[in-house]
Amino acid sequence: MTKYRIEKDTMGQVEVPADKYWGAQTERSRNNFKIGPAASMPLEVVYGFAYLKKAAAYTNAELGVLAAEKRDLIAQVCDEILEGKHDDQFPLVIWQTGSGTQSNMNVNEVIANRAHEIAGKVIGEGEKTIQPNDDVNKSQSSNDTFPTGMHIAAYKKVVEVTIPGVEQLRDTLQAKAEAFKDVVKIGRTHLMDATPLTLGQEFSGYVAQLNFGLNALKNTLAHLAQLALGGTAVGTGLNTPAGYDVLVAKYIAEFTGLPFITAENKFEALAAHDALVETHGALKQLAVSLNKIANDIRLMASGPRSGIGEIIIPANEPGSSIMPGKVNPTQAEAMTMVCAQVMGNDVAVTVGGTQGHYELNVFKPMMAANVLQSAQLIGDACVSFDVNCAAGIEPNQTRITELLNNSLMLVTALNTKIGYYKAAEIANTAHANGTTLKEEAVRLGYVTPEQYDEWVKPEDMIGSLK
Amino acid sequence: MTKYRIEKDTMGQVEVPADKYWGAQTERSRNNFKIGPAASMPLEVVYGFAYLKKAAAYTNAELGVLAAEKRDLIAQVCDEILEGKHDDQFPLVIWQTGSGTQSNMNVNEVIANRAHEIAGKVIGEGEKTIQPNDDVNKSQSSNDTFPTGMHIAAYKKVVEVTIPGVEQLRDTLQAKAEAFKDVVKIGRTHLMDATPLTLGQEFSGYVAQLNFGLNALKNTLAHLAQLALGGTAVGTGLNTPAGYDVLVAKYIAEFTGLPFITAENKFEALAAHDALVETHGALKQLAVSLNKIANDIRLMASGPRSGIGEIIIPANEPGSSIMPGKVNPTQAEAMTMVCAQVMGNDVAVTVGGTQGHYELNVFKPMMAANVLQSAQLIGDACVSFDVNCAAGIEPNQTRITELLNNSLMLVTALNTKIGYYKAAEIANTAHANGTTLKEEAVRLGYVTPEQYDEWVKPEDMIGSLK
Amino acid sequence: MTKYRIEKDTMGQVEVPADKYWGAQTERSRNNFKIGPAASMPLEVVYGFAYLKKAAAYTNAELGVLAAEKRDLIAQVCDEILEGKHDDQFPLVIWQTGSGTQSNMNVNEVIANRAHEIAGKVIGEGEKTIQPNDDVNKSQSSNDTFPTGMHIAAYKKVVEVTIPGVEQLRDTLQAKAEAFKDVVKIGRTHLMDATPLTLGQEFSGYVAQLNFGLNALKNTLAHLAQLALGGTAVGTGLNTPAGYDVLVAKYIAEFTGLPFITAENKFEALAAHDALVETHGALKQLAVSLNKIANDIRLMASGPRSGIGEIIIPANEPGSSIMPGKVNPTQAEAMTMVCAQVMGNDVAVTVGGTQGHYELNVFKPMMAANVLQSAQLIGDACVSFDVNCAAGIEPNQTRITELLNNSLMLVTALNTKIGYYKAAEIANTAHANGTTLKEEAVRLGYVTPEQYDEWVKPEDMIGSLK
Amino acid sequence: MTKYRIEKDTMGQVEVPADKYWGAQTERSRNNFKIGPAASMPLEVVYGFAYLKKAAAYTNAELGVLAAEKRDLIAQVCDEILEGKHDDQFPLVIWQTGSGTQSNMNVNEVIANRAHEIAGKVIGEGEKTIQPNDDVNKSQSSNDTFPTGMHIAAYKKVVEVTIPGVEQLRDTLQAKAEAFKDVVKIGRTHLMDATPLTLGQEFSGYVAQLNFGLNALKNTLAHLAQLALGGTAVGTGLNTPAGYDVLVAKYIAEFTGLPFITAENKFEALAAHDALVETHGALKQLAVSLNKIANDIRLMASGPRSGIGEIIIPANEPGSSIMPGKVNPTQAEAMTMVCAQVMGNDVAVTVGGTQGHYELNVFKPMMAANVLQSAQLIGDACVSFDVNCAAGIEPNQTRITELLNNSLMLVTALNTKIGYYKAAEIANTAHANGTTLKEEAVRLGYVTPEQYDEWVKPEDMIGSLK
Repeated sequence: MTKYRIEKDTMGQVEVPADKYWGAQTERSRNNFKIGPAASMPLEVVYGFAYLKKAAAYTNAELGVLAAEKRDLIAQVCDEILEGKHDDQFPLVIWQTGSGTQSNMNVNEVIANRAHEIAGKVIGEGEKTIQPNDDVNKSQSSNDTFPTGMHIAAYKKVVEVTIPGVEQLRDTLQAKAEAFKDVVKIGRTHLMDATPLTLGQEFSGYVAQLNFGLNALKNTLAHLAQLALGGTAVGTGLNTPAGYDVLVAKYIAEFTGLPFITAENKFEALAAHDALVETHGALKQLAVSLNKIANDIRLMASGPRSGIGEIIIPANEPGSSIMPGKVNPTQAEAMTMVCAQVMGNDVAVTVGGTQGHYELNVFKPMMAANVLQSAQLIGDACVSFDVNCAAGIEPNQTRITELLNNSLMLVTALNTKIGYYKAAEIANTAHANGTTLKEEAVRLGYVTPEQYDEWVKPEDMIGSLK
Repeated sequence: MTKYRIEKDTMGQVEVPADKYWGAQTERSRNNFKIGPAASMPLEVVYGFAYLKKAAAYTNAELGVLAAEKRDLIAQVCDEILEGKHDDQFPLVIWQTGSGTQSNMNVNEVIANRAHEIAGKVIGEGEKTIQPNDDVNKSQSSNDTFPTGMHIAAYKKVVEVTIPGVEQLRDTLQAKAEAFKDVVKIGRTHLMDATPLTLGQEFSGYVAQLNFGLNALKNTLAHLAQLALGGTAVGTGLNTPAGYDVLVAKYIAEFTGLPFITAENKFEALAAHDALVETHGALKQLAVSLNKIANDIRLMASGPRSGIGEIIIPANEPGSSIMPGKVNPTQAEAMTMVCAQVMGNDVAVTVGGTQGHYELNVFKPMMAANVLQSAQLIGDACVSFDVNCAAGIEPNQTRITELLNNSLMLVTALNTKIGYYKAAEIANTAHANGTTLKEEAVRLGYVTPEQYDEWVKPEDMIGSLK
Repeated sequence: MTKYRIEKDTMGQVEVPADKYWGAQTERSRNNFKIGPAASMPLEVVYGFAYLKKAAAYTNAELGVLAAEKRDLIAQVCDEILEGKHDDQFPLVIWQTGSGTQSNMNVNEVIANRAHEIAGKVIGEGEKTIQPNDDVNKSQSSNDTFPTGMHIAAYKKVVEVTIPGVEQLRDTLQAKAEAFKDVVKIGRTHLMDATPLTLGQEFSGYVAQLNFGLNALKNTLAHLAQLALGGTAVGTGLNTPAGYDVLVAKYIAEFTGLPFITAENKFEALAAHDALVETHGALKQLAVSLNKIANDIRLMASGPRSGIGEIIIPANEPGSSIMPGKVNPTQAEAMTMVCAQVMGNDVAVTVGGTQGHYELNVFKPMMAANVLQSAQLIGDACVSFDVNCAAGIEPNQTRITELLNNSLMLVTALNTKIGYYKAAEIANTAHANGTTLKEEAVRLGYVTPEQYDEWVKPEDMIGSLK
Repeated sequence: MTKYRIEKDTMGQVEVPADKYWGAQTERSRNNFKIGPAASMPLEVVYGFAYLKKAAAYTNAELGVLAAEKRDLIAQVCDEILEGKHDDQFPLVIWQTGSGTQSNMNVNEVIANRAHEIAGKVIGEGEKTIQPNDDVNKSQSSNDTFPTGMHIAAYKKVVEVTIPGVEQLRDTLQAKAEAFKDVVKIGRTHLMDATPLTLGQEFSGYVAQLNFGLNALKNTLAHLAQLALGGTAVGTGLNTPAGYDVLVAKYIAEFTGLPFITAENKFEALAAHDALVETHGALKQLAVSLNKIANDIRLMASGPRSGIGEIIIPANEPGSSIMPGKVNPTQAEAMTMVCAQVMGNDVAVTVGGTQGHYELNVFKPMMAANVLQSAQLIGDACVSFDVNCAAGIEPNQTRITELLNNSLMLVTALNTKIGYYKAAEIANTAHANGTTLKEEAVRLGYVTPEQYDEWVKPEDMIGSLK
């Protein structure tokens, strides 16, 4: 049977499971918001809080408003949280108050009670060694801590998961672009046969897409690096000591090793979360690019006998529970599902971003959760796609050559020799008769066989005129 | 240290944790798709599979293609799964193959190995008592089982969580509409003062919204009730015995107590998931309605002293970590965050729905996960909002009366007496002078004081002319 | 040089082009909202207003609050508007006040001035024969007329353009499904070769999709048929004679020939536009379906020589300005662009729908414009796709047979004879060796050549077992 | 009666209205794509084409593949198009082939026929002085011209309409922030009373939002400045003279005065339009910001008597057709409708962006049209909002002071003196008793009246501690 202890807040007493560090407000929130699975608030946000609570304690102590012993106790618990020792102490959900107040209090309460324990006391007995509001939350409000925590979490996720993941895939595609630079194949526009290019050129396009996307994503980091902390309740910085905002950001930068700075405008930093909208916009752009790439690869790998079949991708698992021997482009499917999710998440983040009122946007937990999910999924999916698919892509040279030589669009090389209209006549006639371009070109009297062979060479059609 | 046993599939051998029932294909998928948190595939889908695997076993046995002993073993494990005994045996993620093949195989493998155990054998030793493909998956494909599982899961969620949740909130709002039917208050259009109505009338509008939404949601159930099972690989029903599709749907209906039937067109049922698009469209409509309702309630409850303050909502938790005594409309915030998420999920489901190719849509797990999340969140959020907010709403009669009597828009009652233009002159003058309508109406000579009192009565302005 | 006359409203005098019927408020709006191209407010909404103004005049007269001569003048101008005689009199944009107040006044002013002219007077001289507010707008508010006008416009568009367009395409696809019912071809799942089906079966799936979509769309009409008129300013019906709302809806139904009724809850009808959200949700579902269909058709038509090439679609225009003789699936491209637009419009409508405040949603013109655009585009695109593409689709029997016979997935027919594992071995070996299934099946000793020929017949694989 | 002449293309003869410059392919497209209103293809794209056709002519001439006389004729017609002389010659719709081929040919045909006329010939008689494909389209394909045209159009729109519009509004808000820097008012979080700030601080947040948005938008211009031209059919540059791509971009830069360069990867530039996705992502971010700003302003302006009423906005038009004297925040409504549309357009652009296949994205016209609409609407709406609303905003000082002094959240200033818990007790008691903070603070014995007056000063609560 669960044992309980009594915790209290300004509204009165609450029974809390005796084996948990959290206090009255966490417990209230747990009971008042039974929406979806428990503990859905991302742990990354909790870790963001741990960084900032430690930084706030250091700053408060340095500015003379917190005792050094309290600072050290707070910092010790924050370090424990960051080591993952208290992951089960954060039971709250995304779908709570939109300022994340109870998640801030959850952290405050866990730190206060765990500090009490570290100080050799029994939780629930005696005056708290450290007060959740007056000490742990000193010079802070949920309204500036939550956005700070979510910026820390999002920034870390983007630079630690998303960017490395995309870069890993980009590097593989770049290596393939180089490796396939002499593989001349048929081009396709409108899904229809077109003039030739190399497989390497196709892959270079994918590389360019990802480079543009990475650049767009990196462009958003400067906004994300700005931290609301120091704004407190409404952005004015009420109840913070002078110099607090700059210093606390400096400590967060030091503890995380990332270039965080204090927000240039705290009112914006509380009332709007355009930084998340901006970052997620770039994640969505990457999703758009990745969707194109994954789609192309599965189209080119389709078959094996009755599709396009120009490339071979790794066979990682039996593809069908009923069709024996079937292999499917499963990594492309996982990737495109991730892309669809990211596109959806973008709308959720966008809608949340529009709805700040006055001094506060109260869609913070939802926005943070979506940005973190998208950043994680893109990073993970790129690595998965890279390792289990892209790295193993090989051209099916036989098939590529077969399809290339069939193409009626090689006729385009004749435009500059005989004009578009005669060239069209050749192609249309060959199509209607099921013959070759050369046959019809000669039969129509527009070129000699020798001219045809000299002018229509796929390998000369993959760049501008010499 | 984890112990392993060897499992094999058509691609060869795989090491699997010895304490798990799953087999080679599940393990391959676990390793090949490390995207986001583990085991993200909703358990509801697994339970949907348990229903259908049992139904398929019964159908196969009845149609003479499966031995009764095998049927009983399969059914026994399915029942165990539905009792929640094997929740930790389904480690796969949403972001796998888009047909959910490995989740189908996960179920097949767990049933086969657990059945082997029930039959008194040691897992991994001897020929499997029941084969995952030839027995558990008999007359099935991932391509028809996964959509069947997700329809079962979605239908159950909608009728067990969403609809009851919305109806519970609707009933409370209906009771409030009745209770507040005589509370005359100022109306507001464009956020500006307008002619009066009753608080009950306002709430009746919310009730109407939810009733329309419930009706729209129920309209989608007929499509969702159609099951793909029996289509097998591409919709043709290859390798199913005659009559299988109708009978298996009948068993599923029996086991779930829900009116499932076989899909009228199996090609549609595999290649498109418009049923999920349709159902989610209705969930999104409900999100739109709930967003309006929650927004209104927090606006009307705003204050307590410097806002609108016409209604009082329950104070459930301290609202601020820095502002003492603050109470916030937290349920409205949770609700509107849910609504934003559902709007985003709708785009994910829509995008997934557009992208079927030929005989198969391969966005199934993503689409299912989003529909299930939205259906759960709306149902849960309605209950939470109901219990913790709506049920406790009370009018602040003093404030309502004060604001009502201030309104310049009471002048509208004079339109039919003196015309729109003169009435406008009265209102404009009162606004400019900071005076009352009556003062200016009389001063301008358009009405006598007695006429004014007779004609301008808020309580007479809440319906059509008598 | 433009000549002007003076018009006035309750705010004062305004110069209006002398050759226009509109008045002061229209002119104010024209000047105050220079956002995007002029006159973007859909004419369909104006026509909706014409129906309702005429109906209101009849109702007001019948209920004794409007003179018969005024009724007749109003009705005459409304008829002229509906004949398209005054299309250039409605210069306002979508991006005006969110209640559409100035578009209501635009109609009121045009009716009043044109009536004055019909009555033999000179516009701008003498007292107006009919007052825009007191007569034309009698028993009305923008808040109930605009939503009524947009419901009329949307309903008409859906039943006159969307549904007939979709049905026309559906009928053609149905005819193709019948015509192609014996064309056995390879199936494809995950874009990879799968078991066979008929081309007719594929098309039957498209028909099913459209039938579900049509049904979903028709399900929304009951909500759309409910008219706000009679709610006036805030839904209470202030300043309307008793019985007005029911009677005016009856007149609108009579004039339009469509089953309009008065809204069961006027507060909902002004403050929320969930009916538009609901209808657009169904339009979006149709877009999802049409996207799948158009995508499939262009994939199957791809080539002509280096793609799939299973069907031939009409060649309607030269496909390339540089590649002679190229033909492209242009109708599929137009269709999928329309689908993307409709998906986007759905988000706009959804966002607008969430944002009503208190008694009024002020996203009316934007929501109406998006619903009308989507309804028009889907209807038009279906007709265009039908006439210029679908009607001309023919199977490429040679190619279909070639691809069918190549497929390794015919091995699936052996599952029920030799089991999934041995069948997989056959397929995998044939794939590795580039041989045929029959060769490997026999070589591996699992079947005799005679058994193979008896068991593996594509034409027997397009349905369940006999 | 319309007269016709015969035009022909590679598919044969077509009747074209005799008074139009366009030719066979334009006419085919006009007939084959009757989707939505005619001529919906944005003229901005046509103008983009005019720039590039002229630049291509100059480049071709300079590189020796086009005669100087042809260059001059082409350039002359391009100049005429840019002067708006041929706006009625471009009748095609957005919903055509997704490469915009017929719009490219429309331009080619108009240039060729008009050049023929300039050269003193009769259109339709004799050999064309200039061939649409071989001359006007020389060294080009629709596949590189259309994306070039849309980049030119989008870049121009962003820098000529969007950025100036946003900056104009930003400057006004900045001036207001300065003007209102001493107006201390109540803050609001969660829509509930919070600690004070100045009205100027609130407006500074809006300025910060727009500055971040402008920065994000400008970050996207580098990608948009990259032009596909020189890639021709599939990105290889087939049929272009060496050096063409760099030189043609240089000419475009010269003719437009904007920093266009040739795309670093032409395969990306044809097959993906992530540049449009990127730019529209920033437009969407601005929409998010503008929505917040417009929402806040209408909330603060709400009333006049029964709302918040802290600011006064200009009264631009009578607000209601039924409620005399009503004035509404109409500019905020237009703005938020624009924002909703932009959010929807973002999804359309995103969906279009995902769907390139192989060497070509065929959602070009739709993507271009949405980017152009959003860029125009945001720019226009900002100017309209600025001129008709923002510039006239004034504080309602009486109301601001009244609401400020009522607020219970002034108690927050006591946190650092007596602790959060006692401060909460004061606030809760005052709220329960309907008394003032001071009364309760003193009555509870936590502060003296003198201390209260010294510690709780709103004007000291708008920044950090001294």
